[in-house]
Amino acid sequence: MSVQLDPQGQLRHLISTEGLPRELLTRILDTAESFSGVLGKSVKKVPLLRGRTIVNLFFEPSTRTRTTFELAAQRLSADVLNIDVATSSTSKGENLLDMLRNLEAMQCDAFVVRHADSGAAEFIARNVAPGVSVINAGDGRHAHPTQALLDAFTIRRHKGPLEPLTIAIVGDILHSRVARSQIHALLGLGAGEVRVIAPRTLLPRAIEHLGVQVYEDMDAGLEGADVVMMLRLQHERMQGALLPSEGEFFSRYGLTEQRLEGSHPEAIVMHPGPVNRGVELDPRVADGPRSVILRQVTNGIAVRMAVMSIVLGGQGEAPTEPLEEVAN
Amino acid sequence: MSVQLDPQGQLRHLISTEGLPRELLTRILDTAESFSGVLGKSVKKVPLLRGRTIVNLFFEPSTRTRTTFELAAQRLSADVLNIDVATSSTSKGENLLDMLRNLEAMQCDAFVVRHADSGAAEFIARNVAPGVSVINAGDGRHAHPTQALLDAFTIRRHKGPLEPLTIAIVGDILHSRVARSQIHALLGLGAGEVRVIAPRTLLPRAIEHLGVQVYEDMDAGLEGADVVMMLRLQHERMQGALLPSEGEFFSRYGLTEQRLEGSHPEAIVMHPGPVNRGVELDPRVADGPRSVILRQVTNGIAVRMAVMSIVLGGQGEAPTEPLEEVAN
Amino acid sequence: MSVQLDPQGQLRHLISTEGLPRELLTRILDTAESFSGVLGKSVKKVPLLRGRTIVNLFFEPSTRTRTTFELAAQRLSADVLNIDVATSSTSKGENLLDMLRNLEAMQCDAFVVRHADSGAAEFIARNVAPGVSVINAGDGRHAHPTQALLDAFTIRRHKGPLEPLTIAIVGDILHSRVARSQIHALLGLGAGEVRVIAPRTLLPRAIEHLGVQVYEDMDAGLEGADVVMMLRLQHERMQGALLPSEGEFFSRYGLTEQRLEGSHPEAIVMHPGPVNRGVELDPRVADGPRSVILRQVTNGIAVRMAVMSIVLGGQGEAPTEPLEEVAN
Repeated sequence: MSVQLDPQGQLRHLISTEGLPRELLTRILDTAESFSGVLGKSVKKVPLLRGRTIVNLFFEPSTRTRTTFELAAQRLSADVLNIDVATSSTSKGENLLDMLRNLEAMQCDAFVVRHADSGAAEFIARNVAPGVSVINAGDGRHAHPTQALLDAFTIRRHKGPLEPLTIAIVGDILHSRVARSQIHALLGLGAGEVRVIAPRTLLPRAIEHLGVQVYEDMDAGLEGADVVMMLRLQHERMQGALLPSEGEFFSRYGLTEQRLEGSHPEAIVMHPGPVNRGVELDPRVADGPRSVILRQVTNGIAVRMAVMSIVLGGQGEAPTEPLEEVAN
Repeated sequence: MSVQLDPQGQLRHLISTEGLPRELLTRILDTAESFSGVLGKSVKKVPLLRGRTIVNLFFEPSTRTRTTFELAAQRLSADVLNIDVATSSTSKGENLLDMLRNLEAMQCDAFVVRHADSGAAEFIARNVAPGVSVINAGDGRHAHPTQALLDAFTIRRHKGPLEPLTIAIVGDILHSRVARSQIHALLGLGAGEVRVIAPRTLLPRAIEHLGVQVYEDMDAGLEGADVVMMLRLQHERMQGALLPSEGEFFSRYGLTEQRLEGSHPEAIVMHPGPVNRGVELDPRVADGPRSVILRQVTNGIAVRMAVMSIVLGGQGEAPTEPLEEVAN
Repeated sequence: MSVQLDPQGQLRHLISTEGLPRELLTRILDTAESFSGVLGKSVKKVPLLRGRTIVNLFFEPSTRTRTTFELAAQRLSADVLNIDVATSSTSKGENLLDMLRNLEAMQCDAFVVRHADSGAAEFIARNVAPGVSVINAGDGRHAHPTQALLDAFTIRRHKGPLEPLTIAIVGDILHSRVARSQIHALLGLGAGEVRVIAPRTLLPRAIEHLGVQVYEDMDAGLEGADVVMMLRLQHERMQGALLPSEGEFFSRYGLTEQRLEGSHPEAIVMHPGPVNRGVELDPRVADGPRSVILRQVTNGIAVRMAVMSIVLGGQGEAPTEPLEEVAN
């Protein structure tokens, strides 16, 4: 998606992981790595984005997601403005464009956009002024690129380079913006094999064309996997015609210790959160030694700091000195 | 209104533009000019109000207006507290005074007040402790002084000194706190001629006594105007008896390219936003080359920074060095 | 309550004033004393908690209380995150623990917790990760320790050491988390005599065992008191069977100038706010020369800064130099 890169090939917006060059994906992870060091200190803050204004523009409420972006911005010393756009009339057309024009005129530097409609983040990115960046925090069923990047970052930290790895994504692939973004990010980073495991009713048509292996059988799909990425099952899906019941879903696709035995002995287990215990994962797995679910959350701050600093600053590296050394 | 000035004639509160001395109005605009330079840099921040606390005390919700004050405060490095006072019981009498006493006791330095009742900001200013300043962000039909000041600032930037200018204000003068504040600010700054253009039903009685020329006919009123300031038409007015319909209003008072031809060839077009396209302005005018509507938004941050720094610091000048030079 | 202290006896969480060692209570007040000096300056800010993240986790809404903690955190230069947990499903059990795990994973340093259920703050403290601190901002009828500490601080500032003082607490002791925390704090600090004054229906059983003197008669209880601490009467209690009417309550337990005559000639009058004028206090007393009610509010910021800095930093002293000297 060419809207994401400027003419020099630098990342200007992050809308999707689809089509991002491998070196750019790698640079984001490398930058996140440098921020991870900062976050381990007691002064978890760098002055990189001081005097810049980042707007959390949430057309769909999500305290959880907003919190991660707000923390990332604070730890880059940016000023943050939280705007919840409640009325549907403002979330489209002329009124939306007017709001963007106004926020740009107030010299805001970046918009973190969450929207219930697929394509909304790209629409906004195509309509913002030069010099303003857009970061997609989830748009409809389309994409959730920072989640996919933090997942890739977590895999790399625990399992090393992605080339030799077999990675299985399990659950409601059809409705998942997370799965879509994960597939593009992992393949873009050169992952050895990416599998999707789901009942036929929860698989998009022609998903094979993305370059993934498709499994309807959980045990076959987990065979030898180095990484097992579970998706969140939306409760509303389970009440529809696509799935008979939570219990039946768990019996076929829930991750248990027994099922994990077929995977690689050092396989890690991931989930974007919040976990429905007993639906997607057995609690013993979710809270067990292979789970890196909370590491994903921690890594999410560093990855979002990396994305913000790259789209706003064009820098690829965090400063080696945190704020305490710089300002005092 | 003497509540605004301290015994030394310094601005302590900004409640209204009425009666402000010309040199004080000029000083606000000059200070805003110096902040405009800061806002053009990537580090849009000065340490002028570090350690000071500014409270956005909004008795009437307005994300848009709150945002402009919040950004202005952040860019002065002040701490900001947003308090939305939802219940009507707290917005009056003893409960209101108790809330003020408490916020003062917490050593807050300034209240930015928005209230549906005319006179509320002045009431609060008359009741705050010494050392606390009040900035009116719109009170009923009474006043909206920062809007008027940013308008005057925008005119001065585009057209130079106000003395030779003919400025036309068009629309619902009767219900507009913006119009009232504009008239006082522009005449206070020595504007050559201020005209109001509206149907008789939307004009206050005896408006001439303020020193303005009154026109019911749009074309006559625009004749030779250097500046055309359109007002926002509130939808609720249009459903009442005062106005027959949006369509008829537009046909008589809507600003079109054709109508603009009667004004000065280099006339600028202004609007406090958000624009009702096709009601107050033809979209081609709103988005056309004469429109400075988005410049008003940009200037609004600098003007609000100027007002905050003057009422809190007594300084008339922004520092020439932004935060990066000062703190690092 | 041993959850509050770490193995070295340092304060890690503040859940209750019950059982806190006297030297620790004294250290909190001494630290607050040093912050009081900072708050009197125009730059009311110290860099003690720069780069630390404090989360206001409010399961029960209270703008007033949240504001005091937010200001305290800002003036310590901490980053603040406000999270209002609206849904009851998130306020308990697995979902609550998941939220805590996530906020910990985001490397938040402290949770300020307000909850309608008694024991919620302790539950959270027992379940947070090492390195994270919990400050109770009021849990059900259990405790409100920062209010009690700011009360003790206010008494010490106005009346000196607590040993020789007779302190009367008046009102709805039964339902008051404030009264409970005050009793423990005052006795822990060595107060000479603590009295509770209330009708039998508003006294907990066996309250004498805490070490207080019980009075049902207001005049007898106020006799010779150095400090009169009024409690807030919740309106909902007054509609129940426990109390006949506001008017009757005031006639028996309302604080008037006449009643105050029986107390020490230099007695001070306190109230945690907001005051129901004419119910708990005659307005002439609430706003009179003996009232230190607004000083309590001011002191509340310094005391909350002290608690935050102690649980997070382990320091007992505020820096002698405020931010301006340190950073510029």
